[in-house]
Amino acid sequence: MPDLSNRCATLKGSPIRRLVPLATAAKKRGIHVYHLNIGQPDIPTPKAFMDGVRTAAIDVLSYSPSPGIADTIEAFRGFYADMGIELSSDELRVTIGGSEAFVFALQTTCDAGTEILVPEPFYPNYMGHAIVNGLRIVPITTRIEDGFHLPPKEEIEGLITDRTRAILFSNPANPTGVGYTREELEGLVELALKHDLYVVSDEPYRELMYEGHAVSILEFPELAQHAILVDSISKRMSACGARIGCVATRNAELMASIDKLCQIRLSAPSFAQYGLVAFLRDPGYRDVIASMKDKFHARRDVLFDALQSLPGVVCRKPEGAFYIMVRLPGVDDSEDFVKFMLNEFELDGETVMVAPGAGFYATAGKGHDEVRMAYVLEEEKLRRAVEVLRAGLEAYVAQCERVSAAAG
Amino acid sequence: MPDLSNRCATLKGSPIRRLVPLATAAKKRGIHVYHLNIGQPDIPTPKAFMDGVRTAAIDVLSYSPSPGIADTIEAFRGFYADMGIELSSDELRVTIGGSEAFVFALQTTCDAGTEILVPEPFYPNYMGHAIVNGLRIVPITTRIEDGFHLPPKEEIEGLITDRTRAILFSNPANPTGVGYTREELEGLVELALKHDLYVVSDEPYRELMYEGHAVSILEFPELAQHAILVDSISKRMSACGARIGCVATRNAELMASIDKLCQIRLSAPSFAQYGLVAFLRDPGYRDVIASMKDKFHARRDVLFDALQSLPGVVCRKPEGAFYIMVRLPGVDDSEDFVKFMLNEFELDGETVMVAPGAGFYATAGKGHDEVRMAYVLEEEKLRRAVEVLRAGLEAYVAQCERVSAAAG
Repeated sequence: MPDLSNRCATLKGSPIRRLVPLATAAKKRGIHVYHLNIGQPDIPTPKAFMDGVRTAAIDVLSYSPSPGIADTIEAFRGFYADMGIELSSDELRVTIGGSEAFVFALQTTCDAGTEILVPEPFYPNYMGHAIVNGLRIVPITTRIEDGFHLPPKEEIEGLITDRTRAILFSNPANPTGVGYTREELEGLVELALKHDLYVVSDEPYRELMYEGHAVSILEFPELAQHAILVDSISKRMSACGARIGCVATRNAELMASIDKLCQIRLSAPSFAQYGLVAFLRDPGYRDVIASMKDKFHARRDVLFDALQSLPGVVCRKPEGAFYIMVRLPGVDDSEDFVKFMLNEFELDGETVMVAPGAGFYATAGKGHDEVRMAYVLEEEKLRRAVEVLRAGLEAYVAQCERVSAAAG
Repeated sequence: MPDLSNRCATLKGSPIRRLVPLATAAKKRGIHVYHLNIGQPDIPTPKAFMDGVRTAAIDVLSYSPSPGIADTIEAFRGFYADMGIELSSDELRVTIGGSEAFVFALQTTCDAGTEILVPEPFYPNYMGHAIVNGLRIVPITTRIEDGFHLPPKEEIEGLITDRTRAILFSNPANPTGVGYTREELEGLVELALKHDLYVVSDEPYRELMYEGHAVSILEFPELAQHAILVDSISKRMSACGARIGCVATRNAELMASIDKLCQIRLSAPSFAQYGLVAFLRDPGYRDVIASMKDKFHARRDVLFDALQSLPGVVCRKPEGAFYIMVRLPGVDDSEDFVKFMLNEFELDGETVMVAPGAGFYATAGKGHDEVRMAYVLEEEKLRRAVEVLRAGLEAYVAQCERVSAAAG
C-alpha cells in the first residue's frame, strides 16, 4: 500500500465525534440524552427561505457564477447595509458555508510554514484547516475567570514573529460565547497595523449578541486592507445544511486571489442561494432573526442561572453565540466525565451530553477541567438538563472517591 | 498593505474567463454568440431530481452527516451496483461536487512538494488545486494525431521520480473526449502497483461514452488499495449547480483521512442530496441518463462530421464526454483567433466562441494551435456554428495575410 504518512493523517478526529457512539448506545438502552454538545440550532428554518428554494424557477440546474449569483451578492450587500456596513459587489463573494470562506482567507493570506494567532479556546476546525494547509496556529491563551476576554495587548504582541501573517478569532465566539469589546478589537487593530497582519474575523453569531453591540471587523475603516470577514448564514437563519456563507474584504488584490479560488471550485450550491435571496427580500427578515436572538437570549439566562445553582461551578455569563464554557465541580478530566454520563449514569431514564473542553485548546494540558455547553434546547429542557447534570456530578464525584479510596 | 506574494497570487486566471467580457461586448452589439467554449449541459435537469428538492420534508435545515446523508450514500451505492461495481457504505463519501472529491484525493495522498502525473491536455482546475496545495503536476504529453491516447508505458514510467505520489486523469476526458481503453488503463495499473502510486480517476463523464465501455478505475480489483474514484453528478444528471459528487476508495486508511476532511468542512449541501436520492430511486433514471447520452452522441457525430468539411482541420473522433480538441487551419495562436471572432467578425449577425487550447496544457508553448469545443448545443445550432466558424476562419486567414503583407 502506498505511504499515507501525510499531513491529513496527522489530523485529530473530533473528540465529540468519538463520543457520539456512546450516546447512540445510551439511546439504544432507552435513555433520553439531552444534547448540549452540538452547535446545531433547533429552531425551524424560516418559511420564506424554504419557499424560496421550493419555488425557484430552475430548468437547467447550471453552474452558478463563481463569485455567487448576482442576486445573492445583492442580498448580502443589503443585509450588511442594514447593519451600517456598505460593501460594493466587488468586496463580497458567496462561499460554501463559513468553512470555505475561512479556508479562502487562510489560503490567500498564509503560506505553508507561516503562523496565525488565535485566542484559545477556539473552534476545533480552525486547527484542522491549518494543518491541511501547513500553517501553525499560535494560541493566545484566555481564561475562564476573565470570561475569555483577551489578555493585555503586550502579551499578544509578544507572540508575533516574522512568520506571523494573521490574527484570527470568532466574535462572538465559539466555544466561549465571549463578545469582544470595541476596545479589545481596537487593540488587535493596532497590532495588525503595526505588524502588517491580516485580521480574519469569523462572525456567524454576530446577530446573537445579548450584551451590547457585536462589533464587526468591517467597522474599522483603518483596517480596510487588512480585514477579512468570514460569515455564514447557518446559525442566524437556522440553515446549517444550506452551506452558504460569504467572505468580504476591501482589499482588492486579496479579493483577486479569492476570485481565483472561487473559480477553481466552480460555484457555491444554487438551491440555497435562492432560499437566501427570498428570505432577505422579505422585509420581515429582521424580525425573524431578532426572534431567534430573543430565544437564545432567554435560554442563555435560563442555563446560566441554573448553572449558578451548582455548588463550586466556574463560569462567566457569555455575551453572545449559544455556547458557554464551564468548569464543573469535581471534574478534572471532562472526557472521562462525558463517558461516565453516557455509559454509567441516568436519572429517571435521562442523561446529558456535553463537549469535553480539551478539544478547543491548542495548548497541551489545557481545558481538561472544562466543558462546552450549547443552549440549543428549549428553556424547560435546559432546566431539566441541569438537574440531570447536578445528579450526574454527584454520582461521578462519589464514584471517583470510591475509585480513589480503593486505589489508596 | 500586508504582503500578498503567496501561492494563490501565482494562480493563473482561466483564459476563457478573460475572454468572456469580449463575448458580452459582442452580444451588446447585437451579435448572437454560439458558445462552444463551456462545459455546461443545456439539457433540463430531470424532473424527479427537482421534485425531490421541492418536496423534501425539512423543518430544521440542519447540518447533514459529514460523510453524506445515509440515503445519499445508499443511492450512490445502488448507482454503482447497477454498473457492476459493489461498494460498501464505508467506501464512499458524498462531496461538494467532483471538485471537492478531487481536492480530498490530492490532500490525502500528496504532500507539498510531491508530484502527480497527468496526461495533458487536462482540465485546467487540476493545476489550480495543485498550486494551492503546493504540488507539482508532471504532464504526460499526448497528441491530437493519436486522438490523445496515452504514449507507450515506458515513456510514462520515465516521468516517475521518488517524489511521484499519484497518477491522475479524467476518463472519458475533459478537454479531449478520449476514453481510455482497458489496455491503456492496465498499463497505468501496472505502473501504479510497481511504483506504489495512487491512481485518481475523475469520471464525471463515464455515462457519456459513445465507443465501447467507459472503464472505471474501480473495475481493477488488484488496485483496491491504490484506486480513488472522483465522481460528480453534474454532467450526467445536468445538475452542475447541485454541487454534489462523491469520492470512493477501498483503502480504509485513506478513507479515514478523507473522513477527517469531511468533518472539518462539516457537510455537503442538503437540498441537492434530496434531489439526487429522489432521482436515483426512480427506476426510470437509467433511461433518463441514456437519453442524455444519446443526445450528446448525436451531437458529437454532427459536430465531428461538420468539422471534417473544413479543409485542413485536424481532429480525431472523441470517444466520450462532450468535448473535442481541434487544430483549425491557419490558426497558430488560438487565443488571438477567439478574440478576432468576438471582436471583429460576424456572419449575418452571428459568431462562435471556442476555448483556446493552451490553457489545457502544462507544457509551455503547447496547445496554441488548438481549441476545445463543447457540443452542448442542439444539432442544428452546431451545424450553423461550424458554418459561421468556416467563414470566420476564412476572414481570419485573409486578415493575417494582410497584416503579414503590410509588415513585410
